[in-house]
Amino acid sequence: MSQPQTNIKAGVVGATGYAGAELLRLLADHPDADVQEVTSRGNAGTRVSDLFPSLRGRLDLEFTVPDVSRLSACDVVFFSTPHGVAMAMTPALLEAGVKVIDLSADFRIKDATLWSQWYGMEHSCPELLEKAAYGLPELYREQIADACLIANPGCYPTATSLGFAPLLKAGLVDVDSLIADAKSGVSGAGRGANVGTLYAEVAEDFHAYAASGHRHQPEIAQTLSYISGKQHGLTFVPHLLPMIRGIEATLYADLLDEKSDIDLQKLYEDYFAGETFVDVMPAGAHPATGTVRGVNHCRIAVHRPQGGKRVVILSVIDNLIKGASGQAIQNMNLMFGLVETTGLGVAPVWP
Amino acid sequence: MSQPQTNIKAGVVGATGYAGAELLRLLADHPDADVQEVTSRGNAGTRVSDLFPSLRGRLDLEFTVPDVSRLSACDVVFFSTPHGVAMAMTPALLEAGVKVIDLSADFRIKDATLWSQWYGMEHSCPELLEKAAYGLPELYREQIADACLIANPGCYPTATSLGFAPLLKAGLVDVDSLIADAKSGVSGAGRGANVGTLYAEVAEDFHAYAASGHRHQPEIAQTLSYISGKQHGLTFVPHLLPMIRGIEATLYADLLDEKSDIDLQKLYEDYFAGETFVDVMPAGAHPATGTVRGVNHCRIAVHRPQGGKRVVILSVIDNLIKGASGQAIQNMNLMFGLVETTGLGVAPVWP
Amino acid sequence: MSQPQTNIKAGVVGATGYAGAELLRLLADHPDADVQEVTSRGNAGTRVSDLFPSLRGRLDLEFTVPDVSRLSACDVVFFSTPHGVAMAMTPALLEAGVKVIDLSADFRIKDATLWSQWYGMEHSCPELLEKAAYGLPELYREQIADACLIANPGCYPTATSLGFAPLLKAGLVDVDSLIADAKSGVSGAGRGANVGTLYAEVAEDFHAYAASGHRHQPEIAQTLSYISGKQHGLTFVPHLLPMIRGIEATLYADLLDEKSDIDLQKLYEDYFAGETFVDVMPAGAHPATGTVRGVNHCRIAVHRPQGGKRVVILSVIDNLIKGASGQAIQNMNLMFGLVETTGLGVAPVWP
Amino acid sequence: MSQPQTNIKAGVVGATGYAGAELLRLLADHPDADVQEVTSRGNAGTRVSDLFPSLRGRLDLEFTVPDVSRLSACDVVFFSTPHGVAMAMTPALLEAGVKVIDLSADFRIKDATLWSQWYGMEHSCPELLEKAAYGLPELYREQIADACLIANPGCYPTATSLGFAPLLKAGLVDVDSLIADAKSGVSGAGRGANVGTLYAEVAEDFHAYAASGHRHQPEIAQTLSYISGKQHGLTFVPHLLPMIRGIEATLYADLLDEKSDIDLQKLYEDYFAGETFVDVMPAGAHPATGTVRGVNHCRIAVHRPQGGKRVVILSVIDNLIKGASGQAIQNMNLMFGLVETTGLGVAPVWP
Repeated sequence: MSQPQTNIKAGVVGATGYAGAELLRLLADHPDADVQEVTSRGNAGTRVSDLFPSLRGRLDLEFTVPDVSRLSACDVVFFSTPHGVAMAMTPALLEAGVKVIDLSADFRIKDATLWSQWYGMEHSCPELLEKAAYGLPELYREQIADACLIANPGCYPTATSLGFAPLLKAGLVDVDSLIADAKSGVSGAGRGANVGTLYAEVAEDFHAYAASGHRHQPEIAQTLSYISGKQHGLTFVPHLLPMIRGIEATLYADLLDEKSDIDLQKLYEDYFAGETFVDVMPAGAHPATGTVRGVNHCRIAVHRPQGGKRVVILSVIDNLIKGASGQAIQNMNLMFGLVETTGLGVAPVWP
Repeated sequence: MSQPQTNIKAGVVGATGYAGAELLRLLADHPDADVQEVTSRGNAGTRVSDLFPSLRGRLDLEFTVPDVSRLSACDVVFFSTPHGVAMAMTPALLEAGVKVIDLSADFRIKDATLWSQWYGMEHSCPELLEKAAYGLPELYREQIADACLIANPGCYPTATSLGFAPLLKAGLVDVDSLIADAKSGVSGAGRGANVGTLYAEVAEDFHAYAASGHRHQPEIAQTLSYISGKQHGLTFVPHLLPMIRGIEATLYADLLDEKSDIDLQKLYEDYFAGETFVDVMPAGAHPATGTVRGVNHCRIAVHRPQGGKRVVILSVIDNLIKGASGQAIQNMNLMFGLVETTGLGVAPVWP
Repeated sequence: MSQPQTNIKAGVVGATGYAGAELLRLLADHPDADVQEVTSRGNAGTRVSDLFPSLRGRLDLEFTVPDVSRLSACDVVFFSTPHGVAMAMTPALLEAGVKVIDLSADFRIKDATLWSQWYGMEHSCPELLEKAAYGLPELYREQIADACLIANPGCYPTATSLGFAPLLKAGLVDVDSLIADAKSGVSGAGRGANVGTLYAEVAEDFHAYAASGHRHQPEIAQTLSYISGKQHGLTFVPHLLPMIRGIEATLYADLLDEKSDIDLQKLYEDYFAGETFVDVMPAGAHPATGTVRGVNHCRIAVHRPQGGKRVVILSVIDNLIKGASGQAIQNMNLMFGLVETTGLGVAPVWP
Repeated sequence: MSQPQTNIKAGVVGATGYAGAELLRLLADHPDADVQEVTSRGNAGTRVSDLFPSLRGRLDLEFTVPDVSRLSACDVVFFSTPHGVAMAMTPALLEAGVKVIDLSADFRIKDATLWSQWYGMEHSCPELLEKAAYGLPELYREQIADACLIANPGCYPTATSLGFAPLLKAGLVDVDSLIADAKSGVSGAGRGANVGTLYAEVAEDFHAYAASGHRHQPEIAQTLSYISGKQHGLTFVPHLLPMIRGIEATLYADLLDEKSDIDLQKLYEDYFAGETFVDVMPAGAHPATGTVRGVNHCRIAVHRPQGGKRVVILSVIDNLIKGASGQAIQNMNLMFGLVETTGLGVAPVWP
C-alpha cells in the first residue's frame, strides 16, 4: 500500500442532488480531505450553502461551471451526475493524474453492449471499463486500492450483493432461485422535480416499480457472478418507500440441499469477520433501516423459516451513505492509503 | 338467497381500535344498518365520539360493557377484539339467533390444533370451526351467504390469497415455489400503546418482522390449498411500512412450464371478471396502496420479468377496509341478502 | 329559492392537480351531478383514470382541450386552474348561461388594483368582481344562492375567517391585535413538479414561508372586514406541514376588555348553531386535522389562557375539501337549490 | 477557567428514551468523555445496544440499577429521567463531588412554589435551586462554567428564549405582546408507550395541545425576565408535528415604537456574533428544522411584515440536540474547561 496521503484536494462534479449533498457533508467532516471545487452548470455562481442551508458554516464555496483544467488541480474528482457525464470527462482527468470516483452508472457494467441496452446510449470510453474497479470494498478491496477509477456501486446492488455474498461464495444455493425484493427511500430517486417523488404522491403510499426489469438487475447479476463464478437468474423487484433514506432488501434463495444442517449464522459471521461496515445481527434479528441512518454500515440478518430449503436474508443500508456517498469516501480512503474508516466514524442518528 | 333485510341492527364488540373505528364509520354511512350497541369494557360510559372525534355528529352512542343479553337484541354482532374473546361469546349469540362476523382470528383456521399452536390457547368451541365461513367473498361467496358465523380474513391473507388465486386455480405453478413478501402500514398492528408502533420508531424506518414464522402463514396456506386442492410450501415475510394504511404483497411463483406462453393478463382478467372489488390493472402496471385508501378494493397486476419462469404478482388493499372492516361489511351484505356493494360505494380518498 | 335541479351537468377545467382530483371524486359520488367534461390542455386524450388510478371504475372520461362551446353545454363549470385562466373564459360561459365556480383566486378580491398587486397581472374582467359571490357559505350564504359566479375561497382564508368570525361579529377584540399562525399540508401547494414539495424536502421538516407577506392576507382581511365592518391589521404567517392534507390555524386576538367575563364557548356555539359543517368542539378541546380528513367540516375550539386578555382560537379543515373542492360542491348545492349537504355526507377517514 | 479535563467519566441515569439515546450517541462520539455507567431500573442487565441497535459496536455496556455509590465514581452524571428523580439523587452526588447535568425539569424553575404548582409535587431540595445554573450557554455562560449543577433547559424554552433574546435585551418591545406559537416533533414527548404518540395518531395529523397552559410557559417567562429585567405576559401555544425531530417557534412581539426604523437584522447578527451554535439567517429567510437535524445549532430569522409594528421571529432547533442532549454536552464542555464545541462538530444530516 502506498504512503497515506492527507490534505487530499477533492472536486465534486454535479453536487446538487441528495447524494451530492451527502458527499459534501462527509467531505466537510473528513479530517484528511478538503473540497476544493464543486461544479454545477445550472447553479454556477450560487453559494453551496445557499442551495444547502444545512451546510451553512461548513463549506465556504461557490458552484462553478465544470471545467477539466480546474478539476485537474484536484487529487480526486467525484461524479455525482446523471449517466453519460462522467464518461465524457474521465479520460482527460485520468490523463492529468487525477483519481476518479464515479457515483453514476457509467463504469459499473463491464460489458459495454449490455450497458448500452440498459442506459440507452453508446459508451464513449469502453476501454476504461476493465480498468475501473467496482467500488464495493468488502468484495473488491484489492482492486480498489490499486485503481485510479472507481465505479461506485448502485444502492440496491450494495445491499443485495452483500446480503447474498456468503451464501453464494459457499456455493450452497440453487443459482436460479435468487429473488431480491428491495425497498428504497425516495432520496434514491434524486432531487429532480418530478411529480412521482412529490410528498403528496409518496407519503402514505407504497408500490413496486420496474417489476419487469430495472437497471440494477444486470449490475447485481454481474457481482453475484463474480462472487460465485456462475451465472444467476436473479429476479429483482424494487419498491418505493414513503421515507427519505434507507434501503431494505429481503433476499430469497433455495438451498441445494434442503436437508442441510449448515449453520447459516456462523457462515455469515465468519464471512464478514473483520469488516467494520458490515454488522451481522444476532440470530432471529430483523435489521431496521433506521439503525443505519447517516452511517456507512450494512446490517444483515439471516433466517431459515421452519428449517426448510428457503433462506431469507435481510439487509439494510442508508442508500445515500453505504449506497452512495459513504461508500465513495470509503473507496477514496482505500485509494489514498488512509485507514478505511476515516471520516466515517460517527454513530447513526436515531431516531 | 333470502329476502334482503334492511334496518339491520348491528352490535360491535371491542370497537376501540383502528379496525373498530373504521367499522363504526362504515356502519354510520351504511344505508341499511344501524349501530345499536358498541361495547368496550375499558371505555364503558365514554361517548364513542369522545374516543373518536372523527365520528362527532355521526354516532350518538356510549360504549357499554359487553353483555350477551343486550347483544342478543342485535341482528348481527361484529367482534373487533383480540383473539379469544369472540369464541367465548359466539355460541350464545348464535344460539340467540344473532349472526356473528368475527374480525379476529378465532375461527379462521379449520384445524383447532394448528390454531392452538399459533395462538397459544385452547380453542373453546372447535365444533363451530366447520360451520364458520371464511369471509373472503371472491373465493367463498356461496358459503358466506348461507352462514351464520363468519371468520373475517386477516389483512395479509386477503391481499395474498386474491393475488395468487388465478395462478393456483389454473394449476400453472410449482406448489413449493410460492413466496409472499408483504408490507403493511402500521394501523395493522392496532391501537395498543406499544413502543414498537410509536411514531418515532416507525417513521423513516422500515424492517421485516416475524421472518421465521407469522400467524398469517397457516391461514394463507389453508386458503391456497382450498383454491388449488394441493399443499403449498409458502414462504411469507411481513414488513412494517412507515405509513398508516395499506398493504402491498409482492408475490412470486415459478411456472411449471417455463416455456409456457400463457396470457397471464387474460387469466387474471377472466378470473376476476364481474368482481366489483377486484381491479386487475393493465399490463405493466404497479398498483399503489394510495389508490385504495378508504375503499374496499384490491388492485392487482401481474408481471413476468424477461418472460422467464417466474411470475410476479402485485396486490394492494387498504388493510383496514378490504383487509378488515370493509370486508366485514361486504360479508354482512351477503348474509342479509343486500347488494354486495351496499355502503361500500364511495371513491378512494387520494392523495 | 329556485326549484332544486338534479342531473346537473358539470364541467371541470384544469382537473389535473390535487384539488381537481378531489373535485372529480366528490362529483363522482354526488347523487345529483355528473361530470360531462374534464379539460386539460396538457393531458388531452388521456383517460382521467390513467392520470388518477384512484378513479378507475368511477369516471369514464378523457381529458379534452378546454373549449368554451363544449363547456357551454354544462350547467356549471368549475375552474381548478392557476390564476388568470378562469377570468379569461368566465365572461363567455356566463353569457352562455353557465354557472361558474372558480377555485382559483381570480374573483376573490373585490379591489382589482389590490388583486393586481398580489397576483402580478391585470384583471381582465374587473366588472365581474362585484357580481362574484365569495363562496364561504357560513358567511355569505344568501349571495351564493343568488349568484352565477362564485369565487371559491382560499384554504387559509376559510379556516381563518371561520375561526375569527364570532369574535369579530361580536365586536369584542382589538382590531389590530389579530394574528393567524397557520399551517398547511403540502397538497395545498399543488401537483406541480417543484423541488420544494418533493418528499425528501418536506418530510421530517417544518418551516414558515412568506412570513413577510402572502396572497391570502388581503383575502382574509377583506372577509374579516366584511364581518366586523372595520379595517384589520392582520399578521398572517403560513407554514408548511410534513403531511398531505389539513390546515390548522392558531388564531390570536386581544379582548378590548381584558376583565371581560364573556362566555366565549357559548358565543361560538351560538354563532355556529345550525351549521352542519362547523363543529364547535367542547371547552378545552384541541381540534386535530386528522378528524376532518376527507370531509367538508371545520372544527373549532376557543381558549383563553389564564383568563387573560388574549383569546386563542384553533381551527382545522381539510384544505382540499372545506378549503377547496368540498366547499365548491357546497356552493354548487346552494346555487342549484339542493340540500346544502348533498354529496358531502360521508364520515371522515381516520386514521 | 479551570484546566481542561479530558477522560471525563460520565454516568447517565435513565437513558432509555430518545433524549437518552441521543446523549449516549453524542458521548460515544465525544473525544474527551467516556460513558462509564448507564442506569435503568427497568432494563438493568440488558445491553445498551440491544435496546438501541443503532449503538451496536459503539457502546459496550449494560444498563445497571441506579446506585449513588457507583455513580459517585463518575466525574459527571446526566439525568434523563422523569421529573422527581434527579432531585432525589442530586444532593448525594454533589456531596460526592460529582457534577450533575439534569435534563429533566427539577431545577429549571427558581421558585419552588411555582415549580410545585406546575409539576404537582413538593420539591425535595429547594436549597439547590439557586445553586443550579440554567444551562442555556448563550445566555448563562458564566454561571454554567462555575456551576456543579446544571438545569438543562426544556426544548421549547431553548428555541423561544434564543429567538426573543435580542429584542428583549434591547428593550424594544411591548412586554405584554409576546406570543410563542411553537411546534415540536413527536420525539419531544418521549419514548413512553402512549396512544397519543402512536404513528397512526401522529402521522398526517396536526393539532395544538395545552393551549390553556403548558409547563414550559413559566420556564420561558423566567428566562425572558432574566434577559429584559421585566415581567412578561407570554402566550405560549405548543403544537405536535407529524415528524420525529425538530422544533420551530414562530414568535410575535409588538414594537413599542411602531414607526421605529431599527435594523432588526443587524440587531440579531450583532447579538449572536461569535456564537457558534446560533446562526442568524440572511434577511428574508425561513429557517427549516431539517437544516439542524442531528446538530446543536439554532437557526433564526427575523421578519417585520409590511414594516409594521409587529416583529416575527422564526427559530428552529433539533429538540433532541440543542433542545436536550447536545446542549447538555455543551454544558459539560463548559463545566470541564473544554472547547465549547467539542464533540458537537459534525454537519447536519440532510435530507
